Amino acid sequence: MLRPMDLRKAFTFFESGPVLVVSSHDGQKDNLMTISWSMVNDFTPRIALTTGPWNTSFKGMLKSKECVLAVLPARLLKTAVGIGTCHSNEVDKWEKFKLTKQTAKIVQAPLIQESVACLECKLVRYLAADNIFIWQGEKLWANPRLSQAKIAHANGDGTFFADGQFYNLRREMKKLLRPTQYRF
Amino acid sequence: MLRPMDLRKAFTFFESGPVLVVSSHDGQKDNLMTISWSMVNDFTPRIALTTGPWNTSFKGMLKSKECVLAVLPARLLKTAVGIGTCHSNEVDKWEKFKLTKQTAKIVQAPLIQESVACLECKLVRYLAADNIFIWQGEKLWANPRLSQAKIAHANGDGTFFADGQFYNLRREMKKLLRPTQYRF
Repeated sequence: MLRPMDLRKAFTFFESGPVLVVSSHDGQKDNLMTISWSMVNDFTPRIALTTGPWNTSFKGMLKSKECVLAVLPARLLKTAVGIGTCHSNEVDKWEKFKLTKQTAKIVQAPLIQESVACLECKLVRYLAADNIFIWQGEKLWANPRLSQAKIAHANGDGTFFADGQFYNLRREMKKLLRPTQYRF
Repeated sequence: MLRPMDLRKAFTFFESGPVLVVSSHDGQKDNLMTISWSMVNDFTPRIALTTGPWNTSFKGMLKSKECVLAVLPARLLKTAVGIGTCHSNEVDKWEKFKLTKQTAKIVQAPLIQESVACLECKLVRYLAADNIFIWQGEKLWANPRLSQAKIAHANGDGTFFADGQFYNLRREMKKLLRPTQYRF
């Protein structure tokens, strides 16, 4: 079960470049897409995503101006890849991949209950020339039982790495950090 | 030693969200900065970076319209963090961190010889309202001896993970992939 979590920590789930699943609602149905072209754009947090009309979810995201960015555990990497390789107009992705909808607080699209973390977002703007969505994260959810779960990163060529060796360099970075924002 | 490598593979070094070191030249000196707010923006490749006037390298990048994006091996994570926590106007970062300059082909800023990969880039545009640089990768270099080196990802809170478990899901993603772009 996902529980509300301090929004100031949200960027720590996204900065490392995880494979993301985006949940959106187009007015009629709930869509899912997988994407790894994302970037933290500020700490508040803002998250930038590169995507465009070639994605089925694109129209719904532009229209609703909302989405949920979900970080799945690496254990569900095949689910994330599966979501990215089939089409919403042929199959109900939620059903096919046995994902559980959890009601979001701010946006209409559902949270994915199996996630490590979900961020409810409102659209700041869409930069059409560069296919970049700028999302403002407004509510963070996380599963405390998955707080140590590894997440997966795409190399872009069909190969992936999960998180491996952990480094704590907080002492070295002390002057740049705000402890209220520590994830762990 | 870095050697030229097929530019079509470049995005595979960036898609997973590595900690990056950016080498730039401001007309007078060679600067280095560390950043992990980056995103692949297309396969050609374009790479988006979030940064702004708060970075010393910012002015030089805007003026020269050039940079080198370097991916260091996780073994040099402390070097990358060190580069991000001192100032070019107080110290020569190349000297302090014992990094070796290798001449680039297209841009004036040097390659970092200790890198896994370096991408010479020209500026497409700077989106001031969102602090986003859009870089066009024009020449890729990689060190064949580091082709299996793990790279590091920042969580943003002073902790990091290196690449861990490897997954090959090329069979599952077959229809989306172009084998000429495989990194491994």
